Amino acid sequence: MIYGVTYPEGFRAAGISAGIKKNNTLDLAAVISDCPASAAALFTKNVIKGHSLLLSKKHVAGGTARLVLMNSGCANACLGQRGEADALRYAMAGARAAGCPVEQVLPQSTGVIGKALPMDTMEMGIHAACAHASKEGGYDAALAIMTTDTHPKIAQADCMLDGKAVKLGAMAKGSGMIHPNLATMLCLVTTDAALSPAAADKALRTAAEVTLNRISVDGDTSVCDQATLLANGLAGNTLLQPDDPELTLFIDTLRGLLDKLARMLAADGEGATKMLEIRIQGAESDEAAHCIASSVARSPLCKTAAYGNDANWGRLITAAGYSGVDFNPKTVDIWIGPLKVCENGAALPFSEEEALALLQQKEVLYTLDFRMGRGNDVMYTCDFSHAYVSINAEYRT
Amino acid sequence: MIYGVTYPEGFRAAGISAGIKKNNTLDLAAVISDCPASAAALFTKNVIKGHSLLLSKKHVAGGTARLVLMNSGCANACLGQRGEADALRYAMAGARAAGCPVEQVLPQSTGVIGKALPMDTMEMGIHAACAHASKEGGYDAALAIMTTDTHPKIAQADCMLDGKAVKLGAMAKGSGMIHPNLATMLCLVTTDAALSPAAADKALRTAAEVTLNRISVDGDTSVCDQATLLANGLAGNTLLQPDDPELTLFIDTLRGLLDKLARMLAADGEGATKMLEIRIQGAESDEAAHCIASSVARSPLCKTAAYGNDANWGRLITAAGYSGVDFNPKTVDIWIGPLKVCENGAALPFSEEEALALLQQKEVLYTLDFRMGRGNDVMYTCDFSHAYVSINAEYRT
Repeated sequence: MIYGVTYPEGFRAAGISAGIKKNNTLDLAAVISDCPASAAALFTKNVIKGHSLLLSKKHVAGGTARLVLMNSGCANACLGQRGEADALRYAMAGARAAGCPVEQVLPQSTGVIGKALPMDTMEMGIHAACAHASKEGGYDAALAIMTTDTHPKIAQADCMLDGKAVKLGAMAKGSGMIHPNLATMLCLVTTDAALSPAAADKALRTAAEVTLNRISVDGDTSVCDQATLLANGLAGNTLLQPDDPELTLFIDTLRGLLDKLARMLAADGEGATKMLEIRIQGAESDEAAHCIASSVARSPLCKTAAYGNDANWGRLITAAGYSGVDFNPKTVDIWIGPLKVCENGAALPFSEEEALALLQQKEVLYTLDFRMGRGNDVMYTCDFSHAYVSINAEYRT
Repeated sequence: MIYGVTYPEGFRAAGISAGIKKNNTLDLAAVISDCPASAAALFTKNVIKGHSLLLSKKHVAGGTARLVLMNSGCANACLGQRGEADALRYAMAGARAAGCPVEQVLPQSTGVIGKALPMDTMEMGIHAACAHASKEGGYDAALAIMTTDTHPKIAQADCMLDGKAVKLGAMAKGSGMIHPNLATMLCLVTTDAALSPAAADKALRTAAEVTLNRISVDGDTSVCDQATLLANGLAGNTLLQPDDPELTLFIDTLRGLLDKLARMLAADGEGATKMLEIRIQGAESDEAAHCIASSVARSPLCKTAAYGNDANWGRLITAAGYSGVDFNPKTVDIWIGPLKVCENGAALPFSEEEALALLQQKEVLYTLDFRMGRGNDVMYTCDFSHAYVSINAEYRT
């Protein structure tokens, strides 16, 4: 049995069709904690923010939550007062259905911008989802938040804290508009660990920085991105504060969990036929390495070459060169997987057959070494295919 | 008769097949001035620079030039000492053929990175091109520099300086890897105006800033981009210095000429089915407006929506929102052509039929008004199609 967000103690979930999407497609997920959970969340850095997201942000600031509601098919964004009123109605319907204060409800929406939520229909759906929420509902919840994803993303992990077995569960959705801070992504992590809200915030921030913030699908950052952590404490460990040394153990586990999801999100980027891992090393600093990795990860030319199984490393060095980072062009080495194709910034003879075989894998690793210092970074992205164009040319209509 | 670069007095040109590309495709252009011309050029800001470009840069620094050689099919980049030696051999063959000092030859290369120039074959081609250069050769020269362009880009213009009729001619090539500073572009402007090298430099820099530096096809900036201006003085006006008031007249004409080319380059971006003009107004400053315009112009989601004739303005406001510029989300108005689709940051009802008709044009104008100040900017880009992916997945092989 795959549980995802219902893997930890005391979490129930459901995914139902609330009438937002056509043809009875699952479009609403509810995840309930049996008791108030410490809540932390990261939000999009886009200046434009969805109405549901803004209300969630306000509620997360209170430090605890019991109910997360997430819908696909409609972003509830750029709708003025109507959108604000709908977000509040969304949360209030959840509060009534789950029997908790409205401040403990975190509504989240993803989908088309500028289209209003069908709140009348949805209110019934919200009640149904909360009423049917169960331990077995984690998978359906993950299905219900999908937009252009081709499969649900679920992960779970375990760790020991304070002699107690602690469980973590998660679900996420992509898959276009994905880029650091925070990608078009909704991600919910549940855990039965006991964490103070401040410890939850620190854990999520630290772990997301090197995982969820290292994905790029198309360089677009959406208005509804949110990653949330709920920690309900039912595992029974002593409540962890931000500076407890044991929090590091939890963060390591959370990082592993989010790394899995990050790879899944990149691999299922819109139209992707393969995942690309861009590894930068030998840069002057980690910041410089990240800047170069981002530039390569968002280059349409690098991504279309990967799609065409073309060992065109010239596009990798070109993207590095316009990243804004200065480096010595004569000390750059480049590998495709284990195959060295460029040394000291100049072409090396290599076997095209070997390169082709490497590029045909589901995961392709590009390594660029600048031999200038100890700065490293890794980004996850995917190739750029005909299907990406099809999906995004026809998305709204 | 279309002349392009041979329109001004004293310029001859040829475009020939020098054996770089297959099937006797034109791949080498030579443009000769009858007398030494003041030379100025702008070069890619990519850290990685092609070997031919680096030699041109050195020669432009001398202030005068007589011969421009431009080849397609091979970038002569990332080849170490071999590439440097080939660039010199390229220029020296030109110097012998045109009978001028090697310092007055500007070799330029565009095409695949990491592949060496076939210099033995090319030397014959360089002699043939210089020998056949004529007033009628401007069109063939424009053909010879094309890579994935679907048609040659040529423009010409006139102005009066000091009572003398002055002519300007130009050719350019795109069409992928195009982005400000300087896009993957080669552009050559010839004029019979008399300008000092410093005046030529000022004119080119000023006019390119609002034209060639306002195009984005895919956000990639290549290693071989170069825009060059040759002014041979045969029009007989008094030599213009950088602070002559009359230089403004020349700059205005040059800006008009380069604006034409910029629109042509954007409209013929790889796989483009239409040109997009992104107009930002009411921003707090011109810099802020430019930052927003760039963000929209390079967004794959905005560009695929345009390809699909989808009036998905939510993607425009989203791209503005992650541009890094802060603004008030509640004072944003958006138009597609003359059709207002968003007011005060919120959706307006509009006719989908009317939007569709506007989006089906060959030129689509998006206007975003932030109602915060007087900052303006315009960027030219194109839509993102299946053909873009095809072209770039299969380019090298």
